Amino acid sequence: MAKLQLALDGDLSDGLAVLEQAHTYVDIVEIGTPLVFREGMRAVRVVRAAYPGLRLLADLKIMDAGEAEADIAFGAGADIVTALGLSGDETIQGALASGEKRAGQVMIDMIGVADPLQRAAELTELGCDLLCLHTAHDQQAKRGSPWRQLAQLREAYPALSLAIAGGISLEVLPQILPLHPQIIVVGSAITAAADPGFAARLIHEGIRQYGDA
Amino acid sequence: MAKLQLALDGDLSDGLAVLEQAHTYVDIVEIGTPLVFREGMRAVRVVRAAYPGLRLLADLKIMDAGEAEADIAFGAGADIVTALGLSGDETIQGALASGEKRAGQVMIDMIGVADPLQRAAELTELGCDLLCLHTAHDQQAKRGSPWRQLAQLREAYPALSLAIAGGISLEVLPQILPLHPQIIVVGSAITAAADPGFAARLIHEGIRQYGDA
Repeated sequence: MAKLQLALDGDLSDGLAVLEQAHTYVDIVEIGTPLVFREGMRAVRVVRAAYPGLRLLADLKIMDAGEAEADIAFGAGADIVTALGLSGDETIQGALASGEKRAGQVMIDMIGVADPLQRAAELTELGCDLLCLHTAHDQQAKRGSPWRQLAQLREAYPALSLAIAGGISLEVLPQILPLHPQIIVVGSAITAAADPGFAARLIHEGIRQYGDA
Repeated sequence: MAKLQLALDGDLSDGLAVLEQAHTYVDIVEIGTPLVFREGMRAVRVVRAAYPGLRLLADLKIMDAGEAEADIAFGAGADIVTALGLSGDETIQGALASGEKRAGQVMIDMIGVADPLQRAAELTELGCDLLCLHTAHDQQAKRGSPWRQLAQLREAYPALSLAIAGGISLEVLPQILPLHPQIIVVGSAITAAADPGFAARLIHEGIRQYGDA
């Protein structure tokens, strides 16, 4: 059954308020890039302390100094750290080495990768096992959704864990769930909802019911 | 005359200790990506308060949500914010819009860009005027230095301001200075020196003497 990852991109206090309502429906809490920029690893430490049972992802989008930068997030208590698929192979290897050292996981953010199938082959070769297909916030209006890429990657690499991110809402679950992503990343559809707890619950239920069907 | 940008990538306290010794020789202080990850915008605010006369760059390496993420850094007191040349044009435009709104400057980090000359044409078209040629830390051993690209960009785009970064030390100044970069970014050659103040002074003097020659 797909896991629900809640991306927190706003202020830390707003994120904590959303989590208080939504945490029971969430599998992975993402400290989003803007929140990392605002608060640094304090955001990871605060959420880690408040919700020790949740998996915690730090969305660093590492582009260089893979091992040193991943060390920062794992050292602060993150379970998963992101690196860009666009980064060099040495950077990916560095992040993976950090993850092995610290029992952490590296998610490769495929944002901006021109040929995801080709890059996925290289990433698999390097030892990556978790990829995130990510439509950039700045391109959601233009590009539409990456369902087709998800289907292609699922077929070509059945052993890969796949996450999907970028403008995901309740409305698109019926299109996404049949493609069997391991992780569904939701941000504003929960955080900007009038009732974030209710929104998270509906998405959680949607995922669960599909898994039972 | 080229400006000296000092990149602080370690702990904030280490960075402040280096700055105390080196600040008189430095034009721009860079809050490096690892320091942003550790401390968030607190690092920008602390350095801003301690050195109100220095220009301050936040090395966010923006890849998405250009306007919102640049807003975070400019709002904290940064004069310059970095965005990745690899990011989409909408992201670049968003960061530039933030810079215009807040009288801040956007430096485009060309790290990982396959064809810098081609991308520079597009970036110039978008309104970018400051590019940084950057050899990834993870690739410095393999790739050598991007002097050739600097020379090519200087020739093709004489109006562009160019920075050069990645493993720069006193030893390579004689190769770099004749290519007339506007900004020379130095990190560990100063921060990891036995005497950071003396190292910064030597590089500063090297730049000044070349400018006078």
